[in-house]
Amino acid sequence: MNKKRPVILVSNDDGITAQGIQFLAQLMSEFGEVYVVGPQEHQSGMAHALTFQVPLRARCISESKDVHMYSLNGTPVDCVKFGLDQLIPNHTADLIVSGINHGSNSANSSIYSGTAACAREGAINRIPSIAFSSLDFSSQIQFEPYVPYIRKIVQTVLNQGLEEHVFLNVNFPKPDRVIRGMRVCHLTKGLWIERFEAELDPRNNTCYWLTGEYHNEEPDNEDSDEWCLAHDFVAIVPIKIEHTDENAKQALSILNC
Amino acid sequence: MNKKRPVILVSNDDGITAQGIQFLAQLMSEFGEVYVVGPQEHQSGMAHALTFQVPLRARCISESKDVHMYSLNGTPVDCVKFGLDQLIPNHTADLIVSGINHGSNSANSSIYSGTAACAREGAINRIPSIAFSSLDFSSQIQFEPYVPYIRKIVQTVLNQGLEEHVFLNVNFPKPDRVIRGMRVCHLTKGLWIERFEAELDPRNNTCYWLTGEYHNEEPDNEDSDEWCLAHDFVAIVPIKIEHTDENAKQALSILNC
Repeated sequence: MNKKRPVILVSNDDGITAQGIQFLAQLMSEFGEVYVVGPQEHQSGMAHALTFQVPLRARCISESKDVHMYSLNGTPVDCVKFGLDQLIPNHTADLIVSGINHGSNSANSSIYSGTAACAREGAINRIPSIAFSSLDFSSQIQFEPYVPYIRKIVQTVLNQGLEEHVFLNVNFPKPDRVIRGMRVCHLTKGLWIERFEAELDPRNNTCYWLTGEYHNEEPDNEDSDEWCLAHDFVAIVPIKIEHTDENAKQALSILNC
Repeated sequence: MNKKRPVILVSNDDGITAQGIQFLAQLMSEFGEVYVVGPQEHQSGMAHALTFQVPLRARCISESKDVHMYSLNGTPVDCVKFGLDQLIPNHTADLIVSGINHGSNSANSSIYSGTAACAREGAINRIPSIAFSSLDFSSQIQFEPYVPYIRKIVQTVLNQGLEEHVFLNVNFPKPDRVIRGMRVCHLTKGLWIERFEAELDPRNNTCYWLTGEYHNEEPDNEDSDEWCLAHDFVAIVPIKIEHTDENAKQALSILNC
């Protein structure tokens, strides 16, 4: 039987030159034909942004039988849309993966992350999608310890698919930790407490940098992604994208007129 | 009894000079003390993006007893975070409103919209939040026909609050339509079919503009926001922000190891 190889789209938010996307693209070529579209520039924190104000330019980085690699001067979600519309025959993929992000996207960082946004865009388009991130922010990460886990997750998703409008958000402990296993868990309840740090620029004008720290509201909950990561487990969270809240719809029915 | 006036934060994605935010800010001063932080530049399609790469600069536009108005050279979500951290005493608000957006944010446009993102940021922070948008894209809109509906929605939300991690996404028919009423409804099932239009720039290099059209998968569903808007009703959708999908969590439990 001649089974067609899966088509896999790879993107990220650290940019096309990041080690994480290069590593992930090579690994995905074990599973199928790989199209890579990465942002030309660093795009962390870009969430689900799109580019409307400037024209986009694509550049072919490399072409081989299994891996077609492009960069685009846009956001992570632009990259996913461009890959689907302009590069992949039939305009769809069997799987979208993004990352491996250099830095954590656990808990509600997933809302701000461009890496998670690529997977969300896949879920909107009903394509099984996975965002991979490492707790290690450094540009030089040894990704090898993650390989058996990525293989298992990808093979499972290719085999059984995902619920409609759900994507997977996967975070890895730093690679120098001894990984104890893998847990399918929930997004930790908590939030970022933001502080803007004021400073004077060289012309004595005040400017601000966004900083903040994460406040975990359930640090002892073993089913939360933060707990799993703090205890050296790979954390997998299936995230349901935004949808109508039926309880609130009932509660607000007095507004109907 | 000396009841404290509500504190209301106003933002948008069309920028501080847009008529929509100016109109909304004035209207909100009927209900409480208003802090306005709008982006210095147009920020449509910026979704939930944050600014990390450049310092932010704030400018006071005007100050009165009831309305404190600032601009910030950042994204819509930066504006909300900045307002909460730097401007509002106690760092919280009783209500966050955004808009009135010049253009529709119905159905899953809410995911790409900076206007909806302001309300989502409120919901993350457990502050009742509402995004207002008009189907009219023009910069000169007569917003008056919307006023009784906005008053009723705001008063209801101030009175009874909203479910945790839910925000309201409100869209108005164009103001030249005779509004038939208001419906609390659901996000229409459908998606944007994107096409990148290629063109040659003056140096003969190919560049691309993102275009697309919305494909409505349930055009006859009277409970959908698209149907309501097409039939001249104000459409109110309570949106639940992203969270763990419990069904998918069960289905993937084979990954635990």
